[in-house]
Amino acid sequence: MRVLGVDPGLTRCGVGVVEGEPGRPCRLIDVRVVQTDPQADLAHRLLALDEALTALVAEHQPDEVAVERVFSQHNVRTVMGTAQASAVAVLAGARAGRPVRTYTPSEVKAAVTGSGQADKAQVTTMVTRLLKLSESPRPADAADALALAICHVWRGGAQARLQAAQLRGAALQRGVLR
Amino acid sequence: MRVLGVDPGLTRCGVGVVEGEPGRPCRLIDVRVVQTDPQADLAHRLLALDEALTALVAEHQPDEVAVERVFSQHNVRTVMGTAQASAVAVLAGARAGRPVRTYTPSEVKAAVTGSGQADKAQVTTMVTRLLKLSESPRPADAADALALAICHVWRGGAQARLQAAQLRGAALQRGVLR
Repeated sequence: MRVLGVDPGLTRCGVGVVEGEPGRPCRLIDVRVVQTDPQADLAHRLLALDEALTALVAEHQPDEVAVERVFSQHNVRTVMGTAQASAVAVLAGARAGRPVRTYTPSEVKAAVTGSGQADKAQVTTMVTRLLKLSESPRPADAADALALAICHVWRGGAQARLQAAQLRGAALQRGVLR
Repeated sequence: MRVLGVDPGLTRCGVGVVEGEPGRPCRLIDVRVVQTDPQADLAHRLLALDEALTALVAEHQPDEVAVERVFSQHNVRTVMGTAQASAVAVLAGARAGRPVRTYTPSEVKAAVTGSGQADKAQVTTMVTRLLKLSESPRPADAADALALAICHVWRGGAQARLQAAQLRGAALQRGVLR
């Protein structure tokens, strides 16, 4: 399964693409930071971000897209831009017909470090280790985007296994399977 | 000049199209409220809104698009959805190559009622009067979208006149005009 992860931001937007199976190491496909000019007007910034993300989805053809969920308790001055960038990211995946899933920052941290309270350095360390990279992805937005993609490969897989198990359980109850 | 105004919302998004010249009455072309299912997931809601707004821009071919600017001091529980809906609206205009301008709620109220502190009823009353409608546009999202479009026709015109006057002044100084 190939997943494109997005750490949304209007000025800096992290994009990471990985391939893998639940419970097994993932492989790095691509990692980028898309930047837009803080001096440009909102329409041009959103359009530039939309074009970059749409092009990356078309280039990498991910099976699914994972985007960080934005919370209003973030810095009030930047949260509006982050929310708007996340809408562009979700839309870029949805317009290409890809399933899009959002994750909270603590779900992502817990998936790659085992703790929802891990700091950025810890996330970067684990992403570097999990993808067997010779050096850390920089900047932090890039590592966060990769962490999101890894989180989705593993969580999506766990959900798929759970769903399969539930279906199997229901079938057993109906006497279809033995 | 034809303007498409958007009062952004994820559950209810007002869209109003008017035609007019600065300082003269505007004419109503269309008014709608685009709704998305609050039970649906974010990707489907943003995609439905994008498709509806993109279709309205294609249908009405506005010269420019006006979108209400979102502030973080709004209700914290709804502000994220409003910010995301506004991104979709700005993008729908920008992708169609239309200039997009954002206005604060008080700029819009001041433009149509003369007061930035006017309430919703006052805005609706003035929109009804300014467009010479036989009955008020309902719901409030629809009236707000029309108020945005009227605001942009008038303000845009004022800016254009100011710019023309400045160019004329500069030309006079250079001795090009008498």
